[in-house]
Amino acid sequence: MNTIPPRPVDAVIAAAREFLGERLSTAEAVREQHGHGEDPSPPVLPDAVAFVETTEEVSRVLALCHQHGVPLVAFGAGTSLEGHVTPVRRGISLDLSRMTAVLEVNAQDMDCLIEPGVTRQQLNDHLRDQGLFFPVDPGSHCTIGGMCATRASGTNAVRYGTIRENVLGLEVVLADGRVITTGGRARKAANGYDLTRLFIGSEGTLGVITRVRLRLHGIPEAMSAAVCQFPDLGAAVETVIATMQAGIPVARIELLDADQMRACIRYSKLEGYAEVPTLFLESHGSQAGVAEQAEAVEAIAAEYGGEGFAWATDPEARNRLWKARHDAYWAAIALKPGWRGITTDVCVPISRLAEALVGAKQDAIAAGHTTCIVGHVGDGNFHQVILFDPNDPQGLERAWEMDRRIVARGLAAGGTCSGEHGIGLGKREFLEQEHGAEALAVMRGIKSSLDPKGILNPGKMFRN
Amino acid sequence: MNTIPPRPVDAVIAAAREFLGERLSTAEAVREQHGHGEDPSPPVLPDAVAFVETTEEVSRVLALCHQHGVPLVAFGAGTSLEGHVTPVRRGISLDLSRMTAVLEVNAQDMDCLIEPGVTRQQLNDHLRDQGLFFPVDPGSHCTIGGMCATRASGTNAVRYGTIRENVLGLEVVLADGRVITTGGRARKAANGYDLTRLFIGSEGTLGVITRVRLRLHGIPEAMSAAVCQFPDLGAAVETVIATMQAGIPVARIELLDADQMRACIRYSKLEGYAEVPTLFLESHGSQAGVAEQAEAVEAIAAEYGGEGFAWATDPEARNRLWKARHDAYWAAIALKPGWRGITTDVCVPISRLAEALVGAKQDAIAAGHTTCIVGHVGDGNFHQVILFDPNDPQGLERAWEMDRRIVARGLAAGGTCSGEHGIGLGKREFLEQEHGAEALAVMRGIKSSLDPKGILNPGKMFRN
Repeated sequence: MNTIPPRPVDAVIAAAREFLGERLSTAEAVREQHGHGEDPSPPVLPDAVAFVETTEEVSRVLALCHQHGVPLVAFGAGTSLEGHVTPVRRGISLDLSRMTAVLEVNAQDMDCLIEPGVTRQQLNDHLRDQGLFFPVDPGSHCTIGGMCATRASGTNAVRYGTIRENVLGLEVVLADGRVITTGGRARKAANGYDLTRLFIGSEGTLGVITRVRLRLHGIPEAMSAAVCQFPDLGAAVETVIATMQAGIPVARIELLDADQMRACIRYSKLEGYAEVPTLFLESHGSQAGVAEQAEAVEAIAAEYGGEGFAWATDPEARNRLWKARHDAYWAAIALKPGWRGITTDVCVPISRLAEALVGAKQDAIAAGHTTCIVGHVGDGNFHQVILFDPNDPQGLERAWEMDRRIVARGLAAGGTCSGEHGIGLGKREFLEQEHGAEALAVMRGIKSSLDPKGILNPGKMFRN
Repeated sequence: MNTIPPRPVDAVIAAAREFLGERLSTAEAVREQHGHGEDPSPPVLPDAVAFVETTEEVSRVLALCHQHGVPLVAFGAGTSLEGHVTPVRRGISLDLSRMTAVLEVNAQDMDCLIEPGVTRQQLNDHLRDQGLFFPVDPGSHCTIGGMCATRASGTNAVRYGTIRENVLGLEVVLADGRVITTGGRARKAANGYDLTRLFIGSEGTLGVITRVRLRLHGIPEAMSAAVCQFPDLGAAVETVIATMQAGIPVARIELLDADQMRACIRYSKLEGYAEVPTLFLESHGSQAGVAEQAEAVEAIAAEYGGEGFAWATDPEARNRLWKARHDAYWAAIALKPGWRGITTDVCVPISRLAEALVGAKQDAIAAGHTTCIVGHVGDGNFHQVILFDPNDPQGLERAWEMDRRIVARGLAAGGTCSGEHGIGLGKREFLEQEHGAEALAVMRGIKSSLDPKGILNPGKMFRN
């Protein structure tokens, strides 16, 4: 008899279906939806998608995958820009987007406990009445679990830190299904290895995050946003550097280059702005403190030829501005209908920002690329969206080549290939270059210790 | 022939002497000095002390210890309060106190690269001319390397974070002598596992830190310190809770109970203060910001019966105050000549601080102990120095028993056994209780991965 031997994944699917029922899906459309993030790398369909609703279900699915040696990729909102959620070795896509409970909010201690599928918007909607907010804001409609897994940050990080500084603890399901809790409710602790920080940024390769305890912040008494436009890119960058070095505690300081402004003006119908390098700023604090910050930043910007400062305190104008900023990636893509884009994520010491950023733009122009730069420049982090024609057989490869040059420039300036998007598939080649072979061996040793069978998001972070 | 077989450590000593010369010491006095920290646990003498001066020497000593299976304990200033530097299994004490170079100061980026033997005072003396400072301040004359190893914090953590938030990267020598660099100069990164945070707080059990890249901060335009006295402990604690919940960004907010005030008034000759529960405060910022903070804190304190607010901006008065605060431990010990003390280090969510702290004091009084409480209360962290008579055979054991009760109370309040002193020898019994068996197994797995022969600071953190 000639039968096809059953695949290990079939055993996982059959067993998981027993307790997940229809929440274990092998439907083509569902698998397609879980085959990619928002980056243009080629999709790979998982064999099945498990829509889990409890830690226990996560644990049972992982125990099955471990038993049968089947790969598993955690999936939240699918907003990764580095291929994190693409199941390159197939297996199970574990969809956590239904785990959206806010389990605790401790207003007095300014912390909360949530499930990983909660998005930052959902959380902030939930918190608003209590005068609290969660500041880490990557812009996209990502889940908090995904943000932890990729060590996300965003526009507010310059003031409030990244997700790393704003997580008190985690619940994590290990590769074999065991469940651990890391961290705790105390603000600080010197009580053993920092497992919380180990899982943050581990990109689903060490465990699956099922609960997150977050630090919260009080909504500031006053918030004020402003736009300032500059004669050239260098002047805008120098303003940022001087602002940071003066220790002015701006909450947000974002740069958009002339191309990005052109894209945003079109896409988000921003009126009254010139297509020149521009800073979007925001200050948080007391009324007096915000006024003091505004004055200080304006004085610095004026020295570099910055113009058109108008501080807006009403929520509507502020929201419109930040909505435009958050849509910058889509605005960039829309510049060339039918084209796609890849995004660099270099982060450098602020003293090297001008050379890294202006140099990256010059490289792109010289090579004939259309690019838009948008950046969390207060942290030295900028993104250059490199557009390419998907119908051009060399298009994507040429875009990657430009990405490599921009990264090389960033590394030469003492920076990193990724400030906040993570390694995933797209940045694996830089990991050894950045850390060296021995440090990478330490990372691999930790990976082996926690996931001896290599079932957790295989093919990501490390090149095998 | 009946000869004593050579010990493995003798091979290490002989080989290390070849390149360290007289800097490899087996002198009794040197070994005695390296047999203990500042805690009262019984000293254990290392077989030899290696005074290293370069990363390469550290690497060679570690390679030898690894080859011969000889335990090694890193030693900085010997200020540990939890037995970290006591070489309980003998072997080599690796003295890093001669590695005191400040290798780089990047004023523009507000970072620096130093060797681990630099103390925080040395660093701040070095930085002062450039308008920069390093804020993490545990009070003692500890080295920065030791602070990294124990995840130290101190009085400024409420505003500037702990050492964890202020380290950008490390150079670490692994158990077998390989040298790795973690982190980098970028302010944030999503580039692989967070090895920096893994080594911070690993208490010398995963590697030896040989270089530290620190974040620095601008010296604030204005600094102002104040003392406020309260009718009872509860009123002082409630003032702290209300201040933190109002989001007032105080730089320091320290509590001393009546016994600790009595001790400090005597020891540091503080005049004009009553022996009642007292807060020491400090504000950093612009002139206007500091004034605004002072006003806000005073209003809150007044509600709880706080009295005697006097804000001092001149450096001399401020230094006198913080010198007294930093000497609080020695002041407490001096209350009973000839006695010694152990120190608790509980840290709880701020909403539970009143019950944990006031309860701990009541427990101590009921059991007839003399104790002083001093605390970084803005973080929910407090230390209760429990005095005991070393000539009383049950003295130390009774003090430990009280420590256990205070920790149990702290854990029940959602806290940790150690906010900043670390686990070392003294807190090992609480580690599993806090994290659970599975999380502890993960920590042990990481330990095995990085130090398979268990030569690095054996007997610490984990109970074997």
